[in-house]
Order: sequence, then C-alpha cells, then structure tokens
Amino acid sequence: MPEPFWKTAISKVEPNKIIVRGYNLMDLVGKYSYASLTYLLWRGELPTDAQAKMMDILLSVCIEHSLNAPSVDAVRFVASCGVPLQSAVSAGVAGFGDWHGGAIEEAARLLQEEVKAASENKRPLRTSAEEIVKRYKQKKEKLPGYGHPTHTSDPRTRKLLEIAGETNVRGPHTELAESIESLTTEFFGRRLILNVDGCIAAIISDMGFDWRIGKGFFIVSRTPGLVAHAYEQLYYDKPYKAARWNEVVYTGPAERKAPDR
Amino acid sequence: MPEPFWKTAISKVEPNKIIVRGYNLMDLVGKYSYASLTYLLWRGELPTDAQAKMMDILLSVCIEHSLNAPSVDAVRFVASCGVPLQSAVSAGVAGFGDWHGGAIEEAARLLQEEVKAASENKRPLRTSAEEIVKRYKQKKEKLPGYGHPTHTSDPRTRKLLEIAGETNVRGPHTELAESIESLTTEFFGRRLILNVDGCIAAIISDMGFDWRIGKGFFIVSRTPGLVAHAYEQLYYDKPYKAARWNEVVYTGPAERKAPDR
Amino acid sequence: MPEPFWKTAISKVEPNKIIVRGYNLMDLVGKYSYASLTYLLWRGELPTDAQAKMMDILLSVCIEHSLNAPSVDAVRFVASCGVPLQSAVSAGVAGFGDWHGGAIEEAARLLQEEVKAASENKRPLRTSAEEIVKRYKQKKEKLPGYGHPTHTSDPRTRKLLEIAGETNVRGPHTELAESIESLTTEFFGRRLILNVDGCIAAIISDMGFDWRIGKGFFIVSRTPGLVAHAYEQLYYDKPYKAARWNEVVYTGPAERKAPDR
Amino acid sequence: MPEPFWKTAISKVEPNKIIVRGYNLMDLVGKYSYASLTYLLWRGELPTDAQAKMMDILLSVCIEHSLNAPSVDAVRFVASCGVPLQSAVSAGVAGFGDWHGGAIEEAARLLQEEVKAASENKRPLRTSAEEIVKRYKQKKEKLPGYGHPTHTSDPRTRKLLEIAGETNVRGPHTELAESIESLTTEFFGRRLILNVDGCIAAIISDMGFDWRIGKGFFIVSRTPGLVAHAYEQLYYDKPYKAARWNEVVYTGPAERKAPDR
Repeated sequence: MPEPFWKTAISKVEPNKIIVRGYNLMDLVGKYSYASLTYLLWRGELPTDAQAKMMDILLSVCIEHSLNAPSVDAVRFVASCGVPLQSAVSAGVAGFGDWHGGAIEEAARLLQEEVKAASENKRPLRTSAEEIVKRYKQKKEKLPGYGHPTHTSDPRTRKLLEIAGETNVRGPHTELAESIESLTTEFFGRRLILNVDGCIAAIISDMGFDWRIGKGFFIVSRTPGLVAHAYEQLYYDKPYKAARWNEVVYTGPAERKAPDR
Repeated sequence: MPEPFWKTAISKVEPNKIIVRGYNLMDLVGKYSYASLTYLLWRGELPTDAQAKMMDILLSVCIEHSLNAPSVDAVRFVASCGVPLQSAVSAGVAGFGDWHGGAIEEAARLLQEEVKAASENKRPLRTSAEEIVKRYKQKKEKLPGYGHPTHTSDPRTRKLLEIAGETNVRGPHTELAESIESLTTEFFGRRLILNVDGCIAAIISDMGFDWRIGKGFFIVSRTPGLVAHAYEQLYYDKPYKAARWNEVVYTGPAERKAPDR
Repeated sequence: MPEPFWKTAISKVEPNKIIVRGYNLMDLVGKYSYASLTYLLWRGELPTDAQAKMMDILLSVCIEHSLNAPSVDAVRFVASCGVPLQSAVSAGVAGFGDWHGGAIEEAARLLQEEVKAASENKRPLRTSAEEIVKRYKQKKEKLPGYGHPTHTSDPRTRKLLEIAGETNVRGPHTELAESIESLTTEFFGRRLILNVDGCIAAIISDMGFDWRIGKGFFIVSRTPGLVAHAYEQLYYDKPYKAARWNEVVYTGPAERKAPDR
Repeated sequence: MPEPFWKTAISKVEPNKIIVRGYNLMDLVGKYSYASLTYLLWRGELPTDAQAKMMDILLSVCIEHSLNAPSVDAVRFVASCGVPLQSAVSAGVAGFGDWHGGAIEEAARLLQEEVKAASENKRPLRTSAEEIVKRYKQKKEKLPGYGHPTHTSDPRTRKLLEIAGETNVRGPHTELAESIESLTTEFFGRRLILNVDGCIAAIISDMGFDWRIGKGFFIVSRTPGLVAHAYEQLYYDKPYKAARWNEVVYTGPAERKAPDR
C-alpha cells in the first residue's frame, strides 16, 4: 500500500466531529480559553491553569505596536491597494522575519542549548552568561533578544516577568536571560535591555516549548493588531498610499542617453 | 502644514509606553484576556465579562479543521518548500477568501441589512426570513452561511448558540439566522444547516460588530492551527511535497510539433 | 472511477519531458521569447511575430515605478524584516489589488462588454463612449483606466499606442478607450488621461484576452522590479525599517485609566 | 538634515518620466526586451545581445512545471478559496523557498566561492570539483543543484548548456558545475544530474550575477505559470478544493475524554 499523501498528528475531522490532539474540540470550547487551545495545538497536551494564564499573557503583550513596526506598515500599504482584509494581513504575517520577532527563535535556541550544556556540565548559569556575552562581543554579533530601537526599558518584559513569577513558570532559562542582561553594561559599554522577544524566548523555554515554534507566539500575538490596521486602512484612510515621488532620493547613475540600436 | 503621512486611532507608541485605544496596554494585560484585547482593538472599547467570554468562544471554535481546508493544504505545501514558519502561515492566511471564511462577511452584511430594514418597517423577522429564502432561491445563489461540505450538523454552530444563550448576547440577528435555517427544507428541498460562518456572522452582528471586520474572527481563530501545521510540515514531514506527475490528468491539446521558424 | 483530484489543460510533466499546451517546452525555448511563452501559457496558442512583439512591450512598460507604488513600499518593509527574497516579493505581489493594477481588469471588462454591445446593436463606438462617460459621471464613480496621481500624460500609454500601431494589433477596444479619453474634459471638467492600466486593458482586449486575466500582465511586468527592490533593501539598506514612533499621529481616545477589576 | 527615509539606486519617477538606472525607460522599451530590462534592473547596466539572449532563456526554461511543484499546488488551493488572482499568485511566490528554487542561490554561492578560491590558489577546477564532492559526501549533505525527483536527465539543463555555448557566456563556473556532475557516480554510487537550479546557478555566475539574487531568476521565470494556474483554478475548476476528510490519516493520540473542570 502506498504511503498516504496526508498524515497529521494534530487533528481529525469527521462529519459533525472535530478531534484535536485526541479531544473532541467542542468538549473543550467554553472550558478552555483560546490561549489554552493554542497550547494544546502546539504541545499536544492541555495546559495547567498556571500555564494557561501564562500562555494568555504571552499572546497578549505583543498584540499591538502601532505603525512603529515594519509588518504593520506593510499591512497598511497592501491594504491601500484595494485588497481583501486577509490579503493585507497576510503581507504583515510575511514580515515576521529574522529581524522582527525572529529573535524569539534565535534567543530560545541559545538559551535552550546553554541551559542544557550548563546542566550537563554542572556549570553555574552565571558562568554561562559570562561566556555568552564574551562570545557575542568577540564575534561582534547582535545578542538575540537584547536591545530595542524605541524602548529603553521594555514594558512588556516587566509584565511578562511579573506574571511568570506569579504563575511559577520561571526557571533556569529566565534566570540565564536576566543574568545575561545584567552583564551587558560591563561588556558592551551600555545596558542592552532584555526585550520582549528575549523574554518570551526565556519563558517559553522554561515552559518546555521547542525553540523552533517560537515565532508562532509572535504571529498569533500580532494578528489582531494587523487585522485592526488593515480594517482602518481599508475603510478610514485614503486608497493607494505610496511614498510620493519627490520624497524618494535617487542614488543611481545620472541620466544618460539610451544606446543607438 | 502638510497632512501627516501616518495617522491611526488604534494605538500610540512612545519610548517605554504602548497606548491602545487610550489605555496603557500593560495596565490591561493580566486583567483582560487576549480575546478581550482583540475586542478592544477592533471596537475601541473594553468588553463586558459576558462579551469577553463570547469573544473567546468566537475565536476558539474554528481554531482547527485539519487538512480538510484549502488554507491548511496551502500552508503544508508552502512549508514543504523550505521557508520560515511565518511565510507558510502567511500563505494560509491569504487563503481566507470569499469561499473559505468569507461567508462571515457576506452573511453578516445580509443579516445587518435585513434586521435594520425589518426594524425600520416594523416587519416581523419571520417575514424577512421568508423573503430572503425566496430571493436566494429565485436568484439561484448560495445562501451565505448555510450548508457545509462535510458536516450535516455543524458542531461549532451548536456550541456558539449555547454560549450565546448563556452570555445573553443573542439578539435579532441570531433569531433571523435561525429562522432562515428553519425554512430551508421547505424552499430548497433539503435542510441547509446554519454553518459556523453563518453563526459567527449572526452573533457578531448581535454584538454590534461592523460586518466588514467579520473575516478578522476567522483569521485570528485559524492562525494557531496554521502555525501547528507549518511546524509539523517543516519538522515532521518530508520536504518538497507536491502532486506526483502521474497523479495529474492533463486535459490540454494533444502533443504537437513546434512550428518551424 | 472517482474524479481525479488534479486536472489541468496547461501542461504535463513526465520524466525528462515538459509539455506546455501540447508543445515540448524545450522545442520552443530559444525560438520563442519569454513573452511568447507567457502568451502560450495564457492563451493556449503561440503568438504571431506581431503579437509576440506586442506581448513583450505589454510586459515591459510597467517593469519599474520606484517607491512611488504601494506594492514596492510593502516589499521594502517586509524585506527589512529579514526574510528570504521571495517572501518580500510575495508581499508586493499581494498588493496588486483593485486600486493598484486592478483597473486593467475593470477597464478591460468595460471595454469588452461595450464593444460587444456596440457591435450587436450596430452602434458607433463614439456613441458608446459618450454613454459610458455620462454613466460614470452620473454614478460619480471613477472611470477605470483613466487619470494618474503622478503623471499628467502617461509615458507608458504613448509607447504602448505607438507599438500597437506598428504591430497592427489595434482594434475597436483601443478606439473606444481613446474616444472616452477625448470626452473627459467636456464631461468631467478636466482631462482624465488614458493611463497605463487603461491602455493595457484596451490592447489586450483587441488581442482577444479574457479581461479576467488582465492582472496577470501587471503581475509579470512588475515582478523584476519587486525583486530589485527586495534585493536592494536586504543588502544595501538598513534592517527593520519602520515608521518612527514620533512620525505617527495618534487620533484615538485620550489616555484613560484602566477600569478597576 | 535628517537621513531621507527612502533612497534607491534603481529608478526615479517624476511626472511623465520614469528613469531606470539612468535611462529613460520609454527610450528602451521596444528596443530592449523584457529580459534585457530585467538584466538592467538587476545589474545596473544594459546587456550585450548575447547576454540578452541568454537572459531570456534563463527566464524561459522554468516557466512551467505543472502541478508537480509545491508552489503551483499552493496557488491552486489558495485560488480555490475565492481570492483575487494576485493573491493566489502571491502564495505561490512565497513557496520559492530553500527546497524549491532555493538551490540556485546555494549552488551559485558554492560555485562562486570555489572558482574564486581556485583562481587565487591557481588550482585546477577539476581538483576543486573532487574536493567539493568529497566534502559533501563526508558531511552527508545534499549537493545543491544536483539530482531531481522526477527527471533523470533534466531537459532544461541541456537546453541551457546549449544556449550558453552558442552565446559564449560559458565560463569557469559552468565548467566546475559539469565537473562536479561527472564525479557524482564515482563518489555517490549513482549519477546526480546537474539540475535546472544548478545549471542556472552556474550560468548566472559566469555572467557575473551576485548569488544572492539567484532566486530572482526562478521567481520571474515561474510567475507566468502561476498566473495560468490561478486563472484556471478560479474559472475552470471547482471552488473550495481541499483534502477530503477521509483521505487524511490521523496519527495523533487516540480519542480521549476532556478533563472535568
């Protein structure tokens, strides 16, 4: 028998029934929140109450950041072209790249590898933190999850840490992340704050998430804001928004004659 | 002074502060759920507890429908091309078109126009329902929000109606939607069930949402599932998934010789 | 036997062989240009030399329009997020909506319907033109394919008309389009120029293309430019380009206290 | 004076004038083909006749590959959702990832680095080829640009090499690519054919293109085919195409009862 073309461990649909990770979805809806169902979809199991609360906060803190985000600007431009709502939102989602939300994955990978190594080598996390900061300084690379172009103290980080304490999901990854932050002034000459990407990375690592699904948090978190901006652009702003021709500085070759042919 | 290029009523970012619809976002996170913040983003005001509960259910019931949805199939194919997570999810979001989630907007528009007209003309909703069903039968058009290719009784509709009753958000739009359903057997010769799109349309209309943001509910609801499928395809399935050449039936012109040139 | 899932009249792939519309693709490549092969893909037949030349021009005139186009701005923002080249290009393609290239379809539909009606009713095209201009003036709707935010005489239109004359593909649709333009001053109080969208619409209609594939010309024409901008943004501009927070004017509710809970 | 927000070396738009890389675009259209203008956009200079011919072939050989490509499958699914033409095409473009067209960049990078190193070290290309094949065998990694799931001899490669010979653009990168191919049987136990991606990579490297724009060739080449498939799906196939529920094999946890709450 040939290998079936489609296989999935996520869910099963039959007439009048939708099974998600073994549960009848309709037995969960109303008892478990959207954030809890997201947890189930991504982890395969239902969250505890504390995990469910943390999950909801993780999806909430990034929900909106105005036009001060390239994904939102992209949504506004695409919406201004006269497309359906979902098409503009889709262009914004495409923008959650390595430099916009992507630090969640990079930072979570780093923290997970380092916490694992520290545990295997029975090395204090403080030592790992020093080693990491030195390494990035030497490589002259950006520390993923640290620094912010607008905020000098990311309000979202503070809120996440507060709830992570309350819900008791804090663990070694968050400890390591804070430890790194505390060393940045010494090593880089200025404090590189633990930003929202880095803090999400730390907490989801403490919750046991694979770093490779890290961007999922950013995607889900930002989608309601993208919808709001697409809607506002489509119905409350002018169509065909574009850089005006005289605002664009041309740096190419001077005007020249086309060759004769 | 020239008109500013960017204006928005949604939010304001300043260093270390994010204002959403007038509120400091960090004063809300932890007190208000992700679903409540979505309500705030889209409506401009915070929901009551009952509205917040309903909102969470509206975002939850469609959270997953396996590969039995073209958007999910698109996500799997694009993920199988070796792209970042968000890129595959973005292709799925692009698929929430007129025939996949789009009935929410069409149905909400119809219900909102008809409830308004009935109220202005002091006409019973039952009369509107009859008139609508006759009109669509005559035009031979699909009733938006009715019928489903897989389900003969949409489990999501039943759950939504149950919670809409509990939270007291039901109103004339839901009444009209149910009234239409009850007439379909008589007029179309078979029961066209009120499907999840139609039921979301009715409830968000009773909650006062503009029909033009209807697809937003579907987009946010489906995004966690799209993320789960992108992740599964990327890390637990084979790369480069495509229809095999011998499964594609070619219906074009028979092989022919290229013209001499 | 069940209906096959996949059917297409476009092409057939077998090991070591690619058939397009009946022809072995490799027998055509080198003899027929990219533009000619595009014609074959969309029409099912190879073009004459004159059609091939016109096709190449149709794909060339819109090839670049700097950042003075919302699709290009979207490409730049998405590229600045740190995504692969194709992902940024994809966001630009998503922007070829009703208000950005979309007039090709609308205008081609109008011209095709009106030329057909004029022919059936043996009515002069001049009469149709007058009737159209009056109708749009009365409906207070934008004439699709006329007017431009930057150009007062669209250089692309002039070039297209010149080549359409040379290649002899001009016909009644182009005549009607020009006739409409000549009436705009009288009816709208200012000359609404036949823009590049409207002119492409006219010429592809004279060439026999279905109006519903009209956007295809714009998509293919613009793609090389989108690639150039994605590349320039990724490798020659700064990452994370976004509207600065102090450039965004907030028009929402004044700052207010979160309710106690 | 603040840094201007938008700068570009690609083009400049003024009322009634479009400058591309210094040339008035309308002075080129009609004299230079679409492929030549693409060359200008990406390289900054006009091609010679031979380069123009090669460019056209490079954009032509991949123009269509039926549904036997995940990008095309994605286009069909998204189109079947009822979206505008460009939205379906956009989802296909998003699919030109690392495993679908992406080998052009990887292979071009490898060839450019190795030819440079061989030249600097005055090492014969044959020696580089051996070293490369050994290295990939040792790393157990896929040689980028070699092997194909359907073709045992890629017809597009043969055509490209033929024209590269005729137009005299062949050089050391193509030599190295062929040299690698000739060694695969010995080192991998079966012939890994130089596929279309690898061959495009070699030729564009010989033409002097930066490997980082390699995917641009695939994107532009495939776009007309994506348009044809979006159009066929929208107007000549059924809406809402999705995997049927009973074709999907569920591999998740067995059905289980929701916990009491």
